[in-house]
Amino acid sequence: MAGSSFGNLFRITTWGESHGPALGVVVDGCPAGLTLEAGDIQTYLDRRKPGQNRISTPRREADEVEILSGVFEGRTTGTPISMMIRNTSQHSADYSEIAGCYRPGHADYTYDAKYGFRDYRGGGRSSGRETAGRVAAGAVAAKLLKEFGIELTAYTAAIGPVTIDPARFEHEAVYTTSTCMPDRDASAKAEAFLADCMANRDSAGGVIECVIKGVPAGLGDPVFEKLDADLAKAVMSIGAVKAVEIGNGTAAAAARGSENNDAFRMEAGRVTKMTNHAGGILGGISDGSDIILRAHVKPTPSIFSPQNTVNTQGDNIELSIKGRHDPVIVPRAVVVVECMAAVTIADALLRNAGAKLDSLKKIYNGR
Amino acid sequence: MAGSSFGNLFRITTWGESHGPALGVVVDGCPAGLTLEAGDIQTYLDRRKPGQNRISTPRREADEVEILSGVFEGRTTGTPISMMIRNTSQHSADYSEIAGCYRPGHADYTYDAKYGFRDYRGGGRSSGRETAGRVAAGAVAAKLLKEFGIELTAYTAAIGPVTIDPARFEHEAVYTTSTCMPDRDASAKAEAFLADCMANRDSAGGVIECVIKGVPAGLGDPVFEKLDADLAKAVMSIGAVKAVEIGNGTAAAAARGSENNDAFRMEAGRVTKMTNHAGGILGGISDGSDIILRAHVKPTPSIFSPQNTVNTQGDNIELSIKGRHDPVIVPRAVVVVECMAAVTIADALLRNAGAKLDSLKKIYNGR
Amino acid sequence: MAGSSFGNLFRITTWGESHGPALGVVVDGCPAGLTLEAGDIQTYLDRRKPGQNRISTPRREADEVEILSGVFEGRTTGTPISMMIRNTSQHSADYSEIAGCYRPGHADYTYDAKYGFRDYRGGGRSSGRETAGRVAAGAVAAKLLKEFGIELTAYTAAIGPVTIDPARFEHEAVYTTSTCMPDRDASAKAEAFLADCMANRDSAGGVIECVIKGVPAGLGDPVFEKLDADLAKAVMSIGAVKAVEIGNGTAAAAARGSENNDAFRMEAGRVTKMTNHAGGILGGISDGSDIILRAHVKPTPSIFSPQNTVNTQGDNIELSIKGRHDPVIVPRAVVVVECMAAVTIADALLRNAGAKLDSLKKIYNGR
Amino acid sequence: MAGSSFGNLFRITTWGESHGPALGVVVDGCPAGLTLEAGDIQTYLDRRKPGQNRISTPRREADEVEILSGVFEGRTTGTPISMMIRNTSQHSADYSEIAGCYRPGHADYTYDAKYGFRDYRGGGRSSGRETAGRVAAGAVAAKLLKEFGIELTAYTAAIGPVTIDPARFEHEAVYTTSTCMPDRDASAKAEAFLADCMANRDSAGGVIECVIKGVPAGLGDPVFEKLDADLAKAVMSIGAVKAVEIGNGTAAAAARGSENNDAFRMEAGRVTKMTNHAGGILGGISDGSDIILRAHVKPTPSIFSPQNTVNTQGDNIELSIKGRHDPVIVPRAVVVVECMAAVTIADALLRNAGAKLDSLKKIYNGR
Repeated sequence: MAGSSFGNLFRITTWGESHGPALGVVVDGCPAGLTLEAGDIQTYLDRRKPGQNRISTPRREADEVEILSGVFEGRTTGTPISMMIRNTSQHSADYSEIAGCYRPGHADYTYDAKYGFRDYRGGGRSSGRETAGRVAAGAVAAKLLKEFGIELTAYTAAIGPVTIDPARFEHEAVYTTSTCMPDRDASAKAEAFLADCMANRDSAGGVIECVIKGVPAGLGDPVFEKLDADLAKAVMSIGAVKAVEIGNGTAAAAARGSENNDAFRMEAGRVTKMTNHAGGILGGISDGSDIILRAHVKPTPSIFSPQNTVNTQGDNIELSIKGRHDPVIVPRAVVVVECMAAVTIADALLRNAGAKLDSLKKIYNGR
Repeated sequence: MAGSSFGNLFRITTWGESHGPALGVVVDGCPAGLTLEAGDIQTYLDRRKPGQNRISTPRREADEVEILSGVFEGRTTGTPISMMIRNTSQHSADYSEIAGCYRPGHADYTYDAKYGFRDYRGGGRSSGRETAGRVAAGAVAAKLLKEFGIELTAYTAAIGPVTIDPARFEHEAVYTTSTCMPDRDASAKAEAFLADCMANRDSAGGVIECVIKGVPAGLGDPVFEKLDADLAKAVMSIGAVKAVEIGNGTAAAAARGSENNDAFRMEAGRVTKMTNHAGGILGGISDGSDIILRAHVKPTPSIFSPQNTVNTQGDNIELSIKGRHDPVIVPRAVVVVECMAAVTIADALLRNAGAKLDSLKKIYNGR
Repeated sequence: MAGSSFGNLFRITTWGESHGPALGVVVDGCPAGLTLEAGDIQTYLDRRKPGQNRISTPRREADEVEILSGVFEGRTTGTPISMMIRNTSQHSADYSEIAGCYRPGHADYTYDAKYGFRDYRGGGRSSGRETAGRVAAGAVAAKLLKEFGIELTAYTAAIGPVTIDPARFEHEAVYTTSTCMPDRDASAKAEAFLADCMANRDSAGGVIECVIKGVPAGLGDPVFEKLDADLAKAVMSIGAVKAVEIGNGTAAAAARGSENNDAFRMEAGRVTKMTNHAGGILGGISDGSDIILRAHVKPTPSIFSPQNTVNTQGDNIELSIKGRHDPVIVPRAVVVVECMAAVTIADALLRNAGAKLDSLKKIYNGR
Repeated sequence: MAGSSFGNLFRITTWGESHGPALGVVVDGCPAGLTLEAGDIQTYLDRRKPGQNRISTPRREADEVEILSGVFEGRTTGTPISMMIRNTSQHSADYSEIAGCYRPGHADYTYDAKYGFRDYRGGGRSSGRETAGRVAAGAVAAKLLKEFGIELTAYTAAIGPVTIDPARFEHEAVYTTSTCMPDRDASAKAEAFLADCMANRDSAGGVIECVIKGVPAGLGDPVFEKLDADLAKAVMSIGAVKAVEIGNGTAAAAARGSENNDAFRMEAGRVTKMTNHAGGILGGISDGSDIILRAHVKPTPSIFSPQNTVNTQGDNIELSIKGRHDPVIVPRAVVVVECMAAVTIADALLRNAGAKLDSLKKIYNGR
């Protein structure tokens, strides 16, 4: 089925394979009048680009975005914004080894089971490279949200056993450390841990956290389009994510009600919460506090140690993966989580416009 | 926005408030020819019914389902199956206290922020009672899946600090213990823990696990309609769920690649995995192993201890909640998780029918 | 597939068979704060009720609507509005004759081909009685549109060879003539024509026109959600409709550009059109003029003359239909066309709220 | 709102403006295993290409399609097929005159009303050039349908007062006459008529007919996803179409039941209809006969005679359009109608796969 679209009013449709001619996304439903240029997108794409440092794959892609439609004289026109990134650095030969077998932890087997065959070059559609389209779309969403005072920040909260210390939180570090950790100390430890993983031809997982500030109360729709449900889908749809938490998440389940409830209090004439265990969402609707979510990312499945698996003929074999692979997916996925959250919030913002008869009348000048 | 529908081909639309005349669901897209009668639905509804035992609210609802359409001479006709449950035990007076204030941990404030006012009786649409529609729909989905050899079992995996011991797993206990734990020992301990919570006018959270057996490889669609993404949304959309895990979930993020990868091996002529850390889904597509997911449920927000909050006039107040409230949501939510998973799998099963040109030709007799 | 829902933001889901226990509709996405009571719906249902006069079937249904959810203290809450109409006058025996054969012009054969069997009682889901749900939903949409100064009027423009004369247009006559013609003279002639049809055990078709006043310019979305495309689907989805025209419709195709183009002119400071051949829609977007559409309705397929057909065993047979059947569908379908148009416009009104960044900012108070 | 997608399971998303860098379409949900290459698409695009003969605009576009994803080793993979056509022949200067005024019959005014401004170059998104994406998608759909024995043919049935004579129907002429009429006599007359229009600086409209052979009985879903409703939307969404007819269409509304009903008869062991006034659809579901539809296309709004209109400053002005414009849209729209019909039928074919429990079991090998 058509499964490459996400969102209702702000809807993105991604396409493209790791080693095809190009990848891209169509962003449909963005309001008209938003200033937008390729540079706005490029900044985000650069954050997920490989080859940034020694813990990411040495594969180098220009990942240069071209805006093909939907922008006129520097502003969005309300019509679909099509963006494309040419693939320029394919080494198809690298992947010939995997054409005939099923790599553990990858989608090779399930794609064959579903479709009868697969584009095996670099994982085809199931490659992490697919996320370039999500990031381009997320850059548009983030720019739109900024107009409403909404800002998103995602960062690495843990790699293997190394977790950040909130007391050392330094926002700038997200963009300058190789791990995307906002804690330079933790980042250094994580780098050491990853070096050890690589030395052992192994890989590591980790946790990405995303904080969304400035979301007005009221976004999200009962019952199935709850904001947390949509965020969970958005984030779980990123390859390698195995768990999603909202607010205190798993810890909330272990707490008592008296500990977990957030008391309301008036502050500066506004309803606020004294704590934010709920992560900014109550009953599936934003409550005006920061929205907080966490994505748990499995270790890179491509490891260099030999592994048991089967080939497409149905023989048991031993596989030794070669090529270029990050020992950890997390740092490059940080911007992907941020972008999927941005798309989800943008859609909820648009969807909420007609919640109240009175709001709708403002649009139509009190008619 | 219209947010009360879920699913693409097997689509459910729920409606109804806690204290309105009735609640219900429309199940659209169920294939024609499935035997179905009210009893099939009632069995599931009875599992979520209040008043079953001393740890659930003493409120008693008959919760009797009426099938209003879509079934003829005992079989589904392919047209929408409308099911309704009359509300028969409303004590609106009980809830008059909450009309004017925002209960911590509830959706009172966010509904007001979104819609300008709310049906405060029993929480209105945000009440847990809303899940009756999900369960009725899930009963249809589960019956459909049985025809394909797919069986789902959800159960309580933890309440507060008490977790089940897989070594003591007893399937029947899910349906006979008050906690829906498949481990009678753990269940007894959980009951004691809950008694302590109640004595302290407090509440507890917990964890629900769901295992789905017999799912063929190939269900789920890249990129955004991944099976795990759809399951995450389905489960996170249940009120009080704050985290969703697939397979090893958060533990996968802490593991190394060599530990987390599941080796493939041929067994009885079929591709199988020697372990199942992935929880039956690779690249968003089912791999033929058991699908395993966990939902983390927050403690019941309605506690009898006094709490700080604000009223709708914007004054800080202290609130003491009265009335009938379960000290834990988990046991009654077990069947809801199972049902949402069933609806999700049923939809994926239908969606997958056209994945291969060859499969589609089977439907149309080789045309 | 799930095919019983219509609309994106203002979404309706209908259910029910002619001779099942009940029929109904769920209206999801209606803004909160609209005053609504059963009487608002009943007025519309009464317009499609059978047994109103001698040219409609003598079958008598109370067709009393019950609002089951989504309304609190007389106003919509923003959550799904579920409405139900009990079937009270089923004579299943009347229809036993059609269980085993395929009536010409009906859906008996196609339902069997699609689903393998069918609920043959009164046509089941394919019965015109299905439109009760559409009308209940349309009544809500029309009430919502009134808040924005939008008013819809549908009427019979032709029955067989008898067409109305615009010069004799009398609005009130729509609701008081048995034909729903706004021209009393034409109505009398149409009645005579229908009497002749009945005397010949035959039936007639006709044309329904709908005029929508007060629609602001800007509704409808390029490319596929054009307002005329959505209206065409809405109206063509009504059983027995075989053609849909917008504005001058088929006549436009026969005209020259110089005749068909509508000149723009400023009037009272607003852009207006000096003619309205376009029927109020340019490029799929409303232009502020009246929206005008026409539905062409085929003659009632149930005629009393003997007809050639086949039975479900595959034998050629001659069929003589008995029972109660209107000689013309048109008058009862008038309100259905009006209601489907109302639902379509309501959805477009909501969808348009986020078209401009500036409009959206009005909702969020200039954020 | 996001309005550039069409279809449920076979879903297309088009993008692009007349004078932007490129136009394109993403086809998502096409079954895996269909042989496909750029040539398959190019054949269809060439049919709508301008500059083919003296009655179409002399503007020359290579309109060369590039397949960017979803095809591997000559077969579709089941993932999105992205196709792009670069714009190579933009003369933006030609259109500077229209930036500041509203052309009668065009979408200039409505786009400004909706979005606040517009990409005025060549009509931007509202240009007929937008249909290139539809045609590329339709070519894929048509190739898929061929695998199931389904063939579509659209042709010009009328231009101005000149209509084809079914007795002279010559299939090949559709592709060789400048009018796309299957009747060479009529075509010659239509050419003469068009020459007269051009001499008078005027334009003409016409009628396109589409016949779809080989559709199995059972496609289309009650109530709102009826096959005729979906076809009506598909075709009405093409710019300049003002009316859609199914089967006998408007003539059916003028006929009596005894004339309009199609008698069923057994033929070669199959249920067939002795006539096909219904146009192959009963109750919204295909009946196995040819599906027949007609689109009525308005005259080209760009005429060279001076016209009254207003400018964007709100002044009444007289406008004389210059540039390159077809005197009739019909011949180039023929392939667009065929392609939209193909997409609609492909979607219905996929949607119908799960209509019967027994059909679905065939996919899953009797599970």
